[in-house]
Amino acid sequence: MPELRKDPVIGRWVIIATERGARPTDFKSAPRVITRGFCPFCEGNEDKTPPEILAYRNSGDRDEKGWRVRVVANKFPALQIEGNLGKRGEGMYDLMRGVGAHEVIIETPEHVTTLTKLSTGRVEEVLWCYSERLNDLKNDKRFAYGLVFKNVGVVAGASLEHTHSQLIATPVVPRTANGEMAGCREFYHYRGRCLFCDMVLQEAASGNRVVVNGDHYLAFEPFASRFPFETWIVPKKHRSNYETVPRDELGELAEVLRECLMRIESALEDPPYNYIVHSAPFGKEDMEDYHWHIEIIPRLTKVAGFEWGTGFYINPVPPERAAEFLREVEL
Amino acid sequence: MPELRKDPVIGRWVIIATERGARPTDFKSAPRVITRGFCPFCEGNEDKTPPEILAYRNSGDRDEKGWRVRVVANKFPALQIEGNLGKRGEGMYDLMRGVGAHEVIIETPEHVTTLTKLSTGRVEEVLWCYSERLNDLKNDKRFAYGLVFKNVGVVAGASLEHTHSQLIATPVVPRTANGEMAGCREFYHYRGRCLFCDMVLQEAASGNRVVVNGDHYLAFEPFASRFPFETWIVPKKHRSNYETVPRDELGELAEVLRECLMRIESALEDPPYNYIVHSAPFGKEDMEDYHWHIEIIPRLTKVAGFEWGTGFYINPVPPERAAEFLREVEL
Repeated sequence: MPELRKDPVIGRWVIIATERGARPTDFKSAPRVITRGFCPFCEGNEDKTPPEILAYRNSGDRDEKGWRVRVVANKFPALQIEGNLGKRGEGMYDLMRGVGAHEVIIETPEHVTTLTKLSTGRVEEVLWCYSERLNDLKNDKRFAYGLVFKNVGVVAGASLEHTHSQLIATPVVPRTANGEMAGCREFYHYRGRCLFCDMVLQEAASGNRVVVNGDHYLAFEPFASRFPFETWIVPKKHRSNYETVPRDELGELAEVLRECLMRIESALEDPPYNYIVHSAPFGKEDMEDYHWHIEIIPRLTKVAGFEWGTGFYINPVPPERAAEFLREVEL
Repeated sequence: MPELRKDPVIGRWVIIATERGARPTDFKSAPRVITRGFCPFCEGNEDKTPPEILAYRNSGDRDEKGWRVRVVANKFPALQIEGNLGKRGEGMYDLMRGVGAHEVIIETPEHVTTLTKLSTGRVEEVLWCYSERLNDLKNDKRFAYGLVFKNVGVVAGASLEHTHSQLIATPVVPRTANGEMAGCREFYHYRGRCLFCDMVLQEAASGNRVVVNGDHYLAFEPFASRFPFETWIVPKKHRSNYETVPRDELGELAEVLRECLMRIESALEDPPYNYIVHSAPFGKEDMEDYHWHIEIIPRLTKVAGFEWGTGFYINPVPPERAAEFLREVEL
């Protein structure tokens, strides 16, 4: 069972994944690579993954062919689903058992390496699948937060190329979510408005950082972009949690997400990237001062000592230029 | 002139380095490499760097041969030394001019690629040089913080292999420093003691995470290590700022730092790494609730979407095992 340990200085939680069996000598600086050849995510190989948790199907039974989207437990989970939290101290330190859920959303049965190769309708189905899984996991009262994210490319942490997303449900609210909520709360307290609602208005009005301006979603390069071509997709309608978005609002999100990724892939020649759904914790579905959104981070620059030491970032491409460049891509 | 922009949600500062001249097309996913061949840091090439700011010399004049340690301005600075801050708003956003200092400490005239190849006495001189530069820069009232760090290897952000450190002085206190100080303040408020002083006592007593236990410094793998073989060096004597450490206490620090790096290099076969000096801001030299230290971070694992999204980390090697492994290295 992995352990969740809390750094006493900064309050960050670390999953010490003792069960993964890594020996210290496995960590010599060998570059990690994506395994090619046999793919456990392809249709027909259903018996090579843990049993399915959810699938959208044209035909077939559980763990058989015929699915369009399929969710399974991660074969090498960072957190484990069974048991209680066992919160305890060790002298001045706090820790608990590494209880949580770690699922993989396999986005298509075909061996396709990017989400953008799927039609908008199929991307919408993937987005709806995120929602269904989050809504199911929040029934488990041990979990405080559900994080949906995607790693594409070795540099971004992917180990399989077949397009997929991941979901981790954690027993504590992550530090980043708490930090965002605190910043938004302060703004709301001072101004009486949601920070992201204001941001959407200002960005749409100035336009110089906008990538896609949809009816219900705005995609833009944030003013203080940490990374070249960092792109946020923010819904124009205020809502704190992703999993409460109704299905009929996910169609345009699929369009905007797909268009952003296509522009990034074309402009930067299929870069490694992550995207992360930022959402309020489970049980906080009606926050007036927090606003869910998606952050897309192409992994083009290295994070060096300065960034680790300070938490501030050096970005060599102004977001205004990045936005212009992305807008000019011909699709 | 670069810009310092503040993220309105989370309060992090980003340096938008407009003057570095990167065009968006420079950021296709080409792997960054270390330039070999001609080395501007080697003795005899003093005219290939900006003029020296400080040097420890056996002979010769400024910008000539004969030095042991030499400090120059970074040729591609993240921040620029001239001018005022020009703090201003842009709608809801805050920004200022990218004023600061960005210096390179060239640790030896010979083309040596690791600090550990220098004798302890020469490492001590490098550490003293950090101090002298910090004490000089803090006289400039525009600067709030001075960060000393080291990048070794491409993965850790280095672009030259000749052993060197960097120093960046910033007009704002970095988010990480504020976060650490806040955590320490809370502990002090609750317990009336310094968090790091307590940590040193507990770690030295339990011993299972200790790498080197010196008379005046303890090197250990922190309880909630984010990364495999993350190693902290904490002085046993309480002091909030690195630059107030007297010279006669740097000799043992040089020994402990050199030994930790040698153990890491040997155990992990010369991994890329960063180390970062964590210290209180300029003008806060007598804080009872903050305690300077050095964090060494081997760069063995990739930071993926989950880590970005949550700020918590997955570490596949328990710190107790990492410490045992490092202790067992034969030097």
